[in-house]
Amino acid sequence: MTVDPIARLTLLFARLPGVGEKTAQRLAFYVLKSPAEYASDLAQALLLLRQEVRLCSQCCNLTAQDPCAICKDPLRDARMICVVESVPDLLAVERTREFRGRYHVLHGALSPLDGIGPDQIKLKELLARLHGTGPDESVQEVIIATDPTVEGEATALYITRLVKPHGIRVTRIAQGLPSGADLEYADQITLSRAISGRREL
Amino acid sequence: MTVDPIARLTLLFARLPGVGEKTAQRLAFYVLKSPAEYASDLAQALLLLRQEVRLCSQCCNLTAQDPCAICKDPLRDARMICVVESVPDLLAVERTREFRGRYHVLHGALSPLDGIGPDQIKLKELLARLHGTGPDESVQEVIIATDPTVEGEATALYITRLVKPHGIRVTRIAQGLPSGADLEYADQITLSRAISGRREL
Repeated sequence: MTVDPIARLTLLFARLPGVGEKTAQRLAFYVLKSPAEYASDLAQALLLLRQEVRLCSQCCNLTAQDPCAICKDPLRDARMICVVESVPDLLAVERTREFRGRYHVLHGALSPLDGIGPDQIKLKELLARLHGTGPDESVQEVIIATDPTVEGEATALYITRLVKPHGIRVTRIAQGLPSGADLEYADQITLSRAISGRREL
Repeated sequence: MTVDPIARLTLLFARLPGVGEKTAQRLAFYVLKSPAEYASDLAQALLLLRQEVRLCSQCCNLTAQDPCAICKDPLRDARMICVVESVPDLLAVERTREFRGRYHVLHGALSPLDGIGPDQIKLKELLARLHGTGPDESVQEVIIATDPTVEGEATALYITRLVKPHGIRVTRIAQGLPSGADLEYADQITLSRAISGRREL
């Protein structure tokens, strides 16, 4: 570690994604100019983060308390499970305020080329929830909200094959043009999926 | 403070300049995925920053040891003092490797409208260095490297009036077109200063 405290903090900030050397230096000087509580609050939050955060034993969401706030909430519909690849994906779905069911976080997507098979993601845990006799035995629909990428699609297909035979409805979030997009500039795959996924008006 | 450790860290990251809510969340998840040492190193660096960093009693640079590394370095020319507004400005000059003298950091620029007069910046300290009998009595040139803004220019003028009568050479860093610029798109002030500041070839 560098001896100079500013250089040391700059170096550590520069390891954050999207933060270059100049930005890191600006951040370090910002901390220096802020009230002393800011630096100590941030330091404490960093230390507690790794200590407190664990996986929810039900949905594999990251949480300080097990089960997580969503799994514990009696107002959330236990009959629907939205399957996502990551916790930021879960938070993105939450921000829409569109979904009032529960989640399951896979912590990845199937990618055999990268050595990520069914055992490397939280698939067992999902199947246990659906087939078990726990609080989730009432699941009626699994909404697969993995990314619309090769890995996400493969994962969606894999889950569908495992879940559907058990009489549970499996749905996939829609693909199409993003809101505000221009047809002229849409890529072929997106446009063709938007057409095949057209809905009656 | 929020109870959820991720939300709490996200909130604190979002207070950094140029970091929005989404970026802050991405940073928090990056910390969560990094080796545990990263979070603890960063936390420690933050705590030590405010404890260790003080002003150099000679040049007002931020430093962990007084005097700072530059003031202590016997290879730096004590006959030249480069006056800058801030420590990032000092570091910018250092990066050029063009200047081998000493510095003086004003920690601001004169701005009467914002209530920043000569007493609010480190001007007294500069004058004490020039007129005192300390290690700086040999100063022969003061290079004013304040920003080419209204405040920076006013500060430069003010310092010139105070220092010049004492027989010390006062210079100002050049203003003109930045390297790689296009004359066609240069603003009027910059171009007129580039012309008035022309040099013999």
